Amino acid sequence: MTQPLRLGIAGLGTVGVGVVRIIQKHADLLEARCGRRIVISAVSAQSRTKNRDVDLSDYAWEDDPVKLAARDDVDVYLELMGGSEGPAKASTEAGIAAGKDIVTANKALLAIHGQALAEAAEARDRVIRFEAAVAGGIPVVKSLTEGLAGNEITRIMGVMNGSCNYILTRMEDAGLSYEAVFDEANQLGYLEADPELDVGGIDAAHKLALLASIAYGTKVNFDGVDLEGIGAVTIEDIHQAADMGYKIKLLGVAQMTGRGLEQRMSPCLVPDTSPLGQLQGGTNMVVLEGDSVGQIVLRGAGAGEGPTASAVMSDVMDIARGLRLSTFGRPAITLREARSAHSAIPAPYYLRMQLLDKPGALGKVAKLLGEAGISIDRMRQYGHNDTSAPVLIVTHKTTRTALNEALEAFESTDVVEGTPVAIRIEAV
Amino acid sequence: MTQPLRLGIAGLGTVGVGVVRIIQKHADLLEARCGRRIVISAVSAQSRTKNRDVDLSDYAWEDDPVKLAARDDVDVYLELMGGSEGPAKASTEAGIAAGKDIVTANKALLAIHGQALAEAAEARDRVIRFEAAVAGGIPVVKSLTEGLAGNEITRIMGVMNGSCNYILTRMEDAGLSYEAVFDEANQLGYLEADPELDVGGIDAAHKLALLASIAYGTKVNFDGVDLEGIGAVTIEDIHQAADMGYKIKLLGVAQMTGRGLEQRMSPCLVPDTSPLGQLQGGTNMVVLEGDSVGQIVLRGAGAGEGPTASAVMSDVMDIARGLRLSTFGRPAITLREARSAHSAIPAPYYLRMQLLDKPGALGKVAKLLGEAGISIDRMRQYGHNDTSAPVLIVTHKTTRTALNEALEAFESTDVVEGTPVAIRIEAV
Repeated sequence: MTQPLRLGIAGLGTVGVGVVRIIQKHADLLEARCGRRIVISAVSAQSRTKNRDVDLSDYAWEDDPVKLAARDDVDVYLELMGGSEGPAKASTEAGIAAGKDIVTANKALLAIHGQALAEAAEARDRVIRFEAAVAGGIPVVKSLTEGLAGNEITRIMGVMNGSCNYILTRMEDAGLSYEAVFDEANQLGYLEADPELDVGGIDAAHKLALLASIAYGTKVNFDGVDLEGIGAVTIEDIHQAADMGYKIKLLGVAQMTGRGLEQRMSPCLVPDTSPLGQLQGGTNMVVLEGDSVGQIVLRGAGAGEGPTASAVMSDVMDIARGLRLSTFGRPAITLREARSAHSAIPAPYYLRMQLLDKPGALGKVAKLLGEAGISIDRMRQYGHNDTSAPVLIVTHKTTRTALNEALEAFESTDVVEGTPVAIRIEAV
Repeated sequence: MTQPLRLGIAGLGTVGVGVVRIIQKHADLLEARCGRRIVISAVSAQSRTKNRDVDLSDYAWEDDPVKLAARDDVDVYLELMGGSEGPAKASTEAGIAAGKDIVTANKALLAIHGQALAEAAEARDRVIRFEAAVAGGIPVVKSLTEGLAGNEITRIMGVMNGSCNYILTRMEDAGLSYEAVFDEANQLGYLEADPELDVGGIDAAHKLALLASIAYGTKVNFDGVDLEGIGAVTIEDIHQAADMGYKIKLLGVAQMTGRGLEQRMSPCLVPDTSPLGQLQGGTNMVVLEGDSVGQIVLRGAGAGEGPTASAVMSDVMDIARGLRLSTFGRPAITLREARSAHSAIPAPYYLRMQLLDKPGALGKVAKLLGEAGISIDRMRQYGHNDTSAPVLIVTHKTTRTALNEALEAFESTDVVEGTPVAIRIEAV
């Protein structure tokens, strides 16, 4: 008879409670599938007395997750607290030092300390698994690491922050401003305590950096992500994009180029008929492209108790079944440094700017674009207010570098009011 | 230094050649990912002299796949020939008897002999892996078996035969009859040598039965699939469905009910705005639903050299990495018999019939539906030809059993010409 697999769970928020519920509800089903009992030895959270609507009386309690992680009766330490530093980091390190396998939903921790943690775990022949850290219930880490293991990965794309996608689709559906929907989402509890993690694209960029590491055999390089949040997207941009057959998404793209690893997390225009364009509300979607498999699209809930707990359990079940894999799909000590390439890959761009009502204004802008080597695909000028008029330009393919040059040159003219908006049009 | 993993490949058609190409092209990448060299020891195919545009000179040749499967220098036998009997079966059995792990793309073999093969392999502690047998490059076997291992699976749906989806979408796009597009697809080489495997739904039903086994812990029960091909779908049905906001898809559905396992492979109406409804051409899509994860949608190429070879390599890489799992996700000897439930789950239906031009004809039909306990949601009658008129009815939710009663009763009236068409409207 195989020994039970004994878990220690730190963090009893949405995800932690979800995991406890699955283990209680499906004890026999899980055992039938993995051939051994999965049991919880001990739990830890900030408050012992909070009512969580789940029976914890069979489990030992630890106030300190560091102690929990190192308990003798724990085989796998589940770090479900979050945060890149503090108790999450300390307890994970303690668990590894004590020879435990680690399952975590913590993208920030791994995006920043993943390399050191993976090296430490692998030196002790332990695994760190993090399916729940990327795109909630979607088995994307597994699909990429294992399902596409025979492919050179040519591109990864994804809408991986449900809150941002909710805000953008809600703006369009209700015709509301960014600010109005942001407040609404905040009141509904859809945003992190620090909303900048969501709307600034940081949370999604953590996830992208983790996937890129697996895909390209490089050390996680979160600092190498070109990061731009959704705060500058206006309802006018959304309407204009829709008019031209596009949707605006906070899209992550990772791609290995001759100049290095390009990682971007920024608002992009995608065709409204594409799977990414059709993604509504809080749903996540990851697109994996490989040289043999072509394009694989994965879609599902990116957050919430059930989906995230499902992903945690996927990792737990793998460990219970003896399916043991390096954290990033190959030994951490073999991962190469990721040289960052910025904006190497050309694309068309959508530009919106406010042109002052002066003779030759449009000509000046067109001339500066031309001087940066950027040609114009489409241009529209709209009705004036007193002193300025909105102008939309869709460029032909150009690099972000060339575009930045042009945008900088605009500043030294006397015809462009404020800062122009530039949104990449991604071929999906 | 870990020993290389040595493959024997039987079948050098599209898939086999694709696998050889990946191993030749990505030898170093694969080794970096799995920690050992993946090498081909020997190959086998019907013709040794056929030009396959790939260099096979480093590999031993076997005329007989049975001998290939048992060679001493083979660790993993790749059965990529196809067919549920004959050499595919004999060589797989020989490989298992000789203690080899098996990777196959052969849905027919596993749908019919999977239980016996899995028991034989597992008795020798060997694995049989078959990612390539279901939905081409989409990692659906892995997602279901491992990614959703913490879930009670509540429903599996899928468009898993690209040829049928090609035919149905091409009919709509070009306004062509089934027969015209069937001939076109056949000439383009999109159909199996026996096209009934495709258009009769048999191939897709094999795949569905394999997924159902994993999902529900039951023995593969291909005979338990309620099977209906796309041959009776007319361009009129497609137009009418579109008018009402639906697409017609050859949809597989597996669901455990109180009365047993319901497995259906049949044309269904799905909302045209749903991911399934928007699926064009030869692409496949599988929808997995679990009690925790909710709905996961997986989309990708269902056939072709690259995608299918990618799936084969996923299995090979798992074996190379030491990721070893029972064929159907739990030991084959623990799988229960799948009691078949037929049409237990109610749904609305689309009915099309030709009503003779007689007084009270519509009343008779409505009355017979009512007597079978079926209420009508929408009805349309169209312009006459000389003697009869097409009538469309959308029912409220009913069971197929009740519907069959009504359809039988129609036959004994003198008002319905020919056989009515009944297509289920699936909630997706």
